[in-house]
Amino acid sequence: MTRIAVCAPSTPITREDAEAVVALAAAEFPGVELVIHDQCFEVDGHFAGGDARRIAALVECANDPSVEAVWFARGGYGACRVAEAAIAKFTHDAQAKTFLGYSDAGYMLGGLYRARIGKPVHGPMLADIRREGGAEAVRRALRWLTGDASGLEPSGDKHPRVAFNLMTLAMLCGTPLMPGLAGHVVLVEEVSEYLYAVDRLFFHLTAHLGGVAGLRLGRISEVPENDRPFGAEAEEIARHWCAHHAIPYLGRADIGHDAMNSIVPFGVAE
Amino acid sequence: MTRIAVCAPSTPITREDAEAVVALAAAEFPGVELVIHDQCFEVDGHFAGGDARRIAALVECANDPSVEAVWFARGGYGACRVAEAAIAKFTHDAQAKTFLGYSDAGYMLGGLYRARIGKPVHGPMLADIRREGGAEAVRRALRWLTGDASGLEPSGDKHPRVAFNLMTLAMLCGTPLMPGLAGHVVLVEEVSEYLYAVDRLFFHLTAHLGGVAGLRLGRISEVPENDRPFGAEAEEIARHWCAHHAIPYLGRADIGHDAMNSIVPFGVAE
Repeated sequence: MTRIAVCAPSTPITREDAEAVVALAAAEFPGVELVIHDQCFEVDGHFAGGDARRIAALVECANDPSVEAVWFARGGYGACRVAEAAIAKFTHDAQAKTFLGYSDAGYMLGGLYRARIGKPVHGPMLADIRREGGAEAVRRALRWLTGDASGLEPSGDKHPRVAFNLMTLAMLCGTPLMPGLAGHVVLVEEVSEYLYAVDRLFFHLTAHLGGVAGLRLGRISEVPENDRPFGAEAEEIARHWCAHHAIPYLGRADIGHDAMNSIVPFGVAE
Repeated sequence: MTRIAVCAPSTPITREDAEAVVALAAAEFPGVELVIHDQCFEVDGHFAGGDARRIAALVECANDPSVEAVWFARGGYGACRVAEAAIAKFTHDAQAKTFLGYSDAGYMLGGLYRARIGKPVHGPMLADIRREGGAEAVRRALRWLTGDASGLEPSGDKHPRVAFNLMTLAMLCGTPLMPGLAGHVVLVEEVSEYLYAVDRLFFHLTAHLGGVAGLRLGRISEVPENDRPFGAEAEEIARHWCAHHAIPYLGRADIGHDAMNSIVPFGVAE
């Protein structure tokens, strides 16, 4: 039996979404037991409970010797407020666990990777069940957590890799949660940002990526329409800023804020 | 006669706005001659001309020995793409000049302050003429440029100060344009950002402000309504992150994306 703890370092999920994923797991992954922390359903303003509550739930899940993985329930915003304090309380019991999520959960993945705790992995979250095709995203996550690597991002890089939401990684730069990324291929994706904001984030991020092995661009989706066209597409923006800082641009990556989002275990070369 | 060069490192202005400001200056500031660079009206996608064109106009204005100040026409987005290259070409003729603007022009002000070139000043721009009460904002700028300090931000700090748009300063952190701010009081304002995004920017920015004398919060205006309340007001957010990094929170500042936006000369104590 693979026991997987679910907690929400950012925003809450609904009981309906949790029940749908529990039902899918029961039907298709008989070896999986999902242990969904009650904190996932709490609401405190924007967040799934206040900072102290989210820290407590993270620590409880990470240090529980009976679970093999911590699956982040949903992104949104809020993990940056709790990641540093929570990770400081993680014990030896957190060390062997996989921590799976993306988007705002990237603050947790980044902080864990910096602290060399556990196995941080970019991949689908429980709340992805609500997307069109979301059941397949959930299956991809549960397959990974039960030893089936079929959902792995397929670019085949020969360097250790990390994957982040562009905004999340840009905000991590220079903070106590930012891991060293020298020698890594960095995959980034974005959703619901204007192209001028994507350009601005690349201006910032690429100034912090000295020594990386390269950058890959995931999907830049749901770009809002601005009052005038930006004049360049997302890939042109990525190429521009990579060239400016002599970062090898390695092409596209199969990640994004969508049901096709694939799996990227941190620090592993393919 | 005070000759003031106007160029647009970010987005274009209209000829109507330029004519309105020229007319105001002619009527009320007989000692002022505005030299508005044609580049201000050019359009290349999002920008007031391509990067090379905006760099050339910036260099032309900054190095023109016949003008005493460079007034940035408008913000928007784009100065971060050209500031470093332009400033590298500024000559001794730029040294005595005032450079006036705010918002996206903060990339220029930050880079100039880092390079110790000229007198960077946060204050109204030409395009503010379009705001309600914008004529008074333009008067405040022209008064400052002609030696009348009545528009000075009134907090009376005893430390050298800088003022920035929150997003702009957060994006400057760790880049080749970021000035050292140890010992400074840092004033920030924001417009049209969700409170969760304001919180996120404070998470990032305050991690980079070690050694500052304190932070003041300008106006956080036109906050869009989110699908749920954030749960804290802007000042509570500022206090939270200042406390987290032991930065003295010094209260409010009289700056913002509005016609009341006041003047903050960089590096000057009141």
